[in-house]
Amino acid sequence: MTDTTQQDRVLIFDTTLRDGEQSPGATMSHDEKLEIAGLLDEMGVDVIEAGFPIASEGDFQAVSDIARNARNAVICGLARANFADIDRCWEAVKHAPRPRIHTFIGTSPLHRDITALTQDAMVDRIQATVAHARNLCDNVQWSPMDATRTEHDYLCRVVETAIKAGATTINIPDTVGYTAPRESADLIRMLLARVPGADTITFATHCHNDLGMATANALAAVEAGARQIECTINGLGERAGNTALEEVVMALKVRNDIMPYRTGIDTTKIMHLSRRVSQVSGFAVQFNKAVVGKNAFLHESGIHQDGVLKNAQTFEIMRPEDIGLTAKNIAMGKHSGRAALRAKMADLGYDLGDNQLKDVFVRFKALADRKKEVYDDDLVALMADAASNAESDHLSLRKLRVICGTEGPQEAELTLSIGGADHFVDATGDGPVDACFNAVKMLYPHGATLDLYQVQAVTEGTDAQATVSVRLSKDGRVFTGQSADTDTVVASVKAYLNALNRMHAGQGRANNAALVTGRTS
Amino acid sequence: MTDTTQQDRVLIFDTTLRDGEQSPGATMSHDEKLEIAGLLDEMGVDVIEAGFPIASEGDFQAVSDIARNARNAVICGLARANFADIDRCWEAVKHAPRPRIHTFIGTSPLHRDITALTQDAMVDRIQATVAHARNLCDNVQWSPMDATRTEHDYLCRVVETAIKAGATTINIPDTVGYTAPRESADLIRMLLARVPGADTITFATHCHNDLGMATANALAAVEAGARQIECTINGLGERAGNTALEEVVMALKVRNDIMPYRTGIDTTKIMHLSRRVSQVSGFAVQFNKAVVGKNAFLHESGIHQDGVLKNAQTFEIMRPEDIGLTAKNIAMGKHSGRAALRAKMADLGYDLGDNQLKDVFVRFKALADRKKEVYDDDLVALMADAASNAESDHLSLRKLRVICGTEGPQEAELTLSIGGADHFVDATGDGPVDACFNAVKMLYPHGATLDLYQVQAVTEGTDAQATVSVRLSKDGRVFTGQSADTDTVVASVKAYLNALNRMHAGQGRANNAALVTGRTS
Repeated sequence: MTDTTQQDRVLIFDTTLRDGEQSPGATMSHDEKLEIAGLLDEMGVDVIEAGFPIASEGDFQAVSDIARNARNAVICGLARANFADIDRCWEAVKHAPRPRIHTFIGTSPLHRDITALTQDAMVDRIQATVAHARNLCDNVQWSPMDATRTEHDYLCRVVETAIKAGATTINIPDTVGYTAPRESADLIRMLLARVPGADTITFATHCHNDLGMATANALAAVEAGARQIECTINGLGERAGNTALEEVVMALKVRNDIMPYRTGIDTTKIMHLSRRVSQVSGFAVQFNKAVVGKNAFLHESGIHQDGVLKNAQTFEIMRPEDIGLTAKNIAMGKHSGRAALRAKMADLGYDLGDNQLKDVFVRFKALADRKKEVYDDDLVALMADAASNAESDHLSLRKLRVICGTEGPQEAELTLSIGGADHFVDATGDGPVDACFNAVKMLYPHGATLDLYQVQAVTEGTDAQATVSVRLSKDGRVFTGQSADTDTVVASVKAYLNALNRMHAGQGRANNAALVTGRTS
Repeated sequence: MTDTTQQDRVLIFDTTLRDGEQSPGATMSHDEKLEIAGLLDEMGVDVIEAGFPIASEGDFQAVSDIARNARNAVICGLARANFADIDRCWEAVKHAPRPRIHTFIGTSPLHRDITALTQDAMVDRIQATVAHARNLCDNVQWSPMDATRTEHDYLCRVVETAIKAGATTINIPDTVGYTAPRESADLIRMLLARVPGADTITFATHCHNDLGMATANALAAVEAGARQIECTINGLGERAGNTALEEVVMALKVRNDIMPYRTGIDTTKIMHLSRRVSQVSGFAVQFNKAVVGKNAFLHESGIHQDGVLKNAQTFEIMRPEDIGLTAKNIAMGKHSGRAALRAKMADLGYDLGDNQLKDVFVRFKALADRKKEVYDDDLVALMADAASNAESDHLSLRKLRVICGTEGPQEAELTLSIGGADHFVDATGDGPVDACFNAVKMLYPHGATLDLYQVQAVTEGTDAQATVSVRLSKDGRVFTGQSADTDTVVASVKAYLNALNRMHAGQGRANNAALVTGRTS
């Protein structure tokens, strides 16, 4: 961690793929995790917490593959306070040029009760596990879970133990999102003042947003001496989520006058990452979300005529370009050519090869025929759709005709290609989507359960694209699918088939139940 | 403002209907504003900023009617720094048992440039306008817009001027969402220390969330001596929105140990208000939103087995009941009776009369037939739908049959009742919704423009209800419509008809363009 030698440099530790992915409903596929990790690395995130290797075979594989593909970022895996967890974590992260093991234990009275360890026994456990991790890897992070509700004297004792045992980063988690900024700062100051060796390691802050103060708490900790912020894209995470990466990074940039710290983040990549994480997690970003919400840079129309046009600074403290929002949101129309599409996609963060461009161009033309104005968000959805509907798929949609309306039952006539041969069926259901899914099941009895079905409008208008997310489970494994189309019913069938194709290809991940004690920090 | 004599009492000033409604796309109808105001009053909000009376005839009517219906809350209207605005504001708020005039002017260098006033000329203007307001009403609030970017010396001078001229509340707006908590506190402390008469009035804090710190900034101002927090439900508002009412109120409740202040809010009404504001504004609340997000009280399933079941406090600092979330989210099934429905609706905050119950019960049974599990959110959508599809409507949907799928053009066969007589037509379009809207236009040529069409899934599952919001404009007036149905296409037609019915009944409001200089604080 050479960067910490510079006193104004704050490390950004992204846990979208671990704490974020742990939030109910946000499960990501292996390929999606790899893609997000690549984007985070490219954006300049210092540390990527890639997963919890012992939780499942799928988590282990994801962390290993992310480690293998890492460029600049440190790749970190999570491990509980036992040797098996730590060994498994090391097996996954060791492939990275710069690996890190992150191990933790709950130190507050409530958590000590759960683990049934005395204060002394817990200190011994911390000493042994951190030392074990340090013997494997010279970059070790340790977290006292629920630190903000741990007695100060005991917190000093466990932090000192971890430092002596070889931890190089000490993370102070506000696990329940309970802290206020002043307390967050006081805690870091207290530790720096009282713990021997505190000046030799990096303190990290890990906040949750239950009371809406995660961003302010993280920044207060930095002002007190913490030099690593743990955060997620869009503030994804359990309950009200984690500190949002985009908020702390932009706050440090915009208010550098009073917070003279810097990160290594290329902020122009923020919007693209926000969109991709929103899509793969199925967690929509609300219009009034700070920095990345649809309205974050929108002003009441009347105001433009008065304040903003006279002087953009009147109401704007950030420029849309700073986060990679191109000024002109109307991207393309049906007359746009292939070169324009490639340039636009590069703008949006996609570097397309010739074959990929050819495929995307066909899809773009089809969309432009149905939709008057093709927005940036539409193109991002199109890319996601292209990625999830490959020609090599076992199942693909040939033809669909649906009859719906006020008089049920609704009817679906479906032609599917299964392993190269076309099959037709006619089914009914409660509503058009139900009828379609029944038709799919008749042609391809799969035995999986539908756990989640979710629709998200990409843009506004009657010709808007809808993104549909589907999550299936079978035999303890989870398979997700997504698709986008101007017709919600068509998008639904494509997303369902996408999940089934992943099931067919064995690209699932273990059910979250395996993560029983996986919650941390 | 008798309450301010108690040093620990913080007034909650809700501006959902003014600053919130001003956000692009969040326009509410007259009846919706009245309903929200009633709910805010009942929840214990101290001051309701009901609108900006001079902006339009619709705003004036809304503020007047909210004033007439007020029970305990102070009703406040907004006015720029001129006599015409202030007089018009008084004409609207004077009907309230406890009226307030809120007048403002931009005091930062950037805003002084826009108004082309010298420092001295602006002081004279403030003196004259605040005195004029005070002659009309003994409860006057004054705001120096962009206070956080105004020079401290000049800010002291204008605040002193407003106090001497009779302002009883001085609001300090962070108009651009620029401040950090320490600055927010320092500013209030500076004013209390330097401005003569500062101890005789109430200081208010008005924060925006552009950098994600609105909640922390508002609470920091309270710790420094402010005793009024300006906020909105769901943090609605321009750009990244305002301080969220639910966050500051719950933070003061949960962390009363370090922030010994209290509000008059009945927190068990929070969830119902959040849902209603989300529906009428069309602004969905993201899953990971603090306090009111769908996931705010959800834990990763595995964790339940470990921490939460052993001790709810392990990961919960608030209880779902505290904000009115009933523990059991699966509300009702098809075998539920009328008494159970009435009890459940009362739980959700709806007090149903006999006729209303009868009507809702019919709709509930129809929904339960199509949907296996009827959730709280479904019932709230059902109520919204009932409110927007009355039997007295000029237009109503008799029958709809839609043929859609992969092969276009999509087709809609529509039977509408118009003024009591049935009419049939057959139309095509790009996608099923476009075909339906074309059919409506053929049967009822209305000349309005579709400004917004937006779909929001209420719950998850293929049988989930979708809520559709539609906004039309014609001759400078805006008409909104909403509806919910398990079939998105049916919900779309009903929402469209709802907006057209409001247009027919003249229940629109002036276009926001009228609000040119209406932005404040």
